[in-house]
Amino acid sequence: MTRIVLGVQYIGTGWNGYQKQPERNTVQDRLEMALEKFACTPLATTCAGRTDTGVHAIEQVVHFDTDLVRPTQAWVRGVNTFLPDSIVVRWAKEVPLGEDGLEFHARFSARSRTYHYVLYNHPTPSALLSNRAGWMFRPLDVERMIDAARHLIGTHDFSAFRASSCQAKTPVKDMHEVRIERHGDIIVFTLRASAFLHHMVRNIVGSLVYVGLGRQEPDWMHEVLESRSRDVAAPTFMPDGLYFAKIEYDPIWKLPQEAVAPLPWL
Amino acid sequence: MTRIVLGVQYIGTGWNGYQKQPERNTVQDRLEMALEKFACTPLATTCAGRTDTGVHAIEQVVHFDTDLVRPTQAWVRGVNTFLPDSIVVRWAKEVPLGEDGLEFHARFSARSRTYHYVLYNHPTPSALLSNRAGWMFRPLDVERMIDAARHLIGTHDFSAFRASSCQAKTPVKDMHEVRIERHGDIIVFTLRASAFLHHMVRNIVGSLVYVGLGRQEPDWMHEVLESRSRDVAAPTFMPDGLYFAKIEYDPIWKLPQEAVAPLPWL
Repeated sequence: MTRIVLGVQYIGTGWNGYQKQPERNTVQDRLEMALEKFACTPLATTCAGRTDTGVHAIEQVVHFDTDLVRPTQAWVRGVNTFLPDSIVVRWAKEVPLGEDGLEFHARFSARSRTYHYVLYNHPTPSALLSNRAGWMFRPLDVERMIDAARHLIGTHDFSAFRASSCQAKTPVKDMHEVRIERHGDIIVFTLRASAFLHHMVRNIVGSLVYVGLGRQEPDWMHEVLESRSRDVAAPTFMPDGLYFAKIEYDPIWKLPQEAVAPLPWL
Repeated sequence: MTRIVLGVQYIGTGWNGYQKQPERNTVQDRLEMALEKFACTPLATTCAGRTDTGVHAIEQVVHFDTDLVRPTQAWVRGVNTFLPDSIVVRWAKEVPLGEDGLEFHARFSARSRTYHYVLYNHPTPSALLSNRAGWMFRPLDVERMIDAARHLIGTHDFSAFRASSCQAKTPVKDMHEVRIERHGDIIVFTLRASAFLHHMVRNIVGSLVYVGLGRQEPDWMHEVLESRSRDVAAPTFMPDGLYFAKIEYDPIWKLPQEAVAPLPWL
């Protein structure tokens, strides 16, 4: 038995999120259908983190166990043959399975996760970025948002940014970094944390946008966090601009993770 | 009666090209449906150039005549309300209608047209660029393609790159510029000419790719052009990476055309 790890990229538009559903119209369903076609046997996969409908992944990480022996590259090229264009296996890597007590797990071995939120900030929407970015027609002050984001760094109870549907055991997460950069009319939010609650990035972006618009002061972010109440924060921002970007693991696993920019074009 | 000019941006994925069809699943159909809903009366539009299924436009130019008096910005915001996300009116401008013998026409007043072809050149396809770029998995030599492209500059009979379905009166066009630039794994081809024949950009890109792969020498492009035969050139490249980028008009029209990069992210 060997454990194979895959780097999977997808555009979430048109899929009912990542996780398997009875209707089989999800990224995981399509990935497992392609793996089964390639391997001629069902293969159950485990991912680093689920994503919602319309949310994209630059590099989702997935593992599965199999008795099949195939050249590693075959898990890339062969499986891609059976996938739609919006889902691509970018790389594959075999990892030790239980050797020396070490065992790689896509979810439990993750040290941190990075998300990007891409926001188009222009009076008129962009057709080119439809389904690829959120949109705010009024001008946003990036400096104010950076100021507000400082309050999020560190270990906090993020209940104020947690969806009611969230199944996480604890709302306490460690936020390592919040970066906000403007590239012309595009603003990219980069958030890196130990883990994220359901809707956490979209809820944080919604609240940062309130500050960027001048509807709230930067220090309001501290109040929101302290309130631990979802009613205090701003509404959930649209999924279109959200990218699950990178999952960090111990270098001992030697995963061929790609140095992908926030977006391939930034 | 006034003549209104619109700058229209769209993603061609899912639409049966630009031009009106009985099934009404085209960009022009959707644009005219939105105009009719906004104006409460049918409005017939004329465009600078048609695009095929799956081809995008950064800035298509369209005009129509109307007796309605509306603030110019209303033709942007009001019409966008009735458009799907993949089609956006970016700007509107009223132009003189027949005054001093001058008359703006989206198609006949055009001095030249610019197209971009975006090609992802990497061993593995990109899900993020699915439907937004062409793909070539083998490495391409940009210098060789630039060398080959020199042969296209000037006034030529472009029959070798003309689709059999082409309805143009003459295959003789004036190619002003062919620029080929690499941005990491993305290659952008920029072609500017008096006008283009049907499939001309995709046929030229297909032939340039043959040269970039080393299957043909750069001077072969001259032979292809001279042959005036579609059978000599390479096959038509996929539509996904093609962007109708800009139409040049006399500055007297003062159109608020946007300085858009090859793509918003380049």
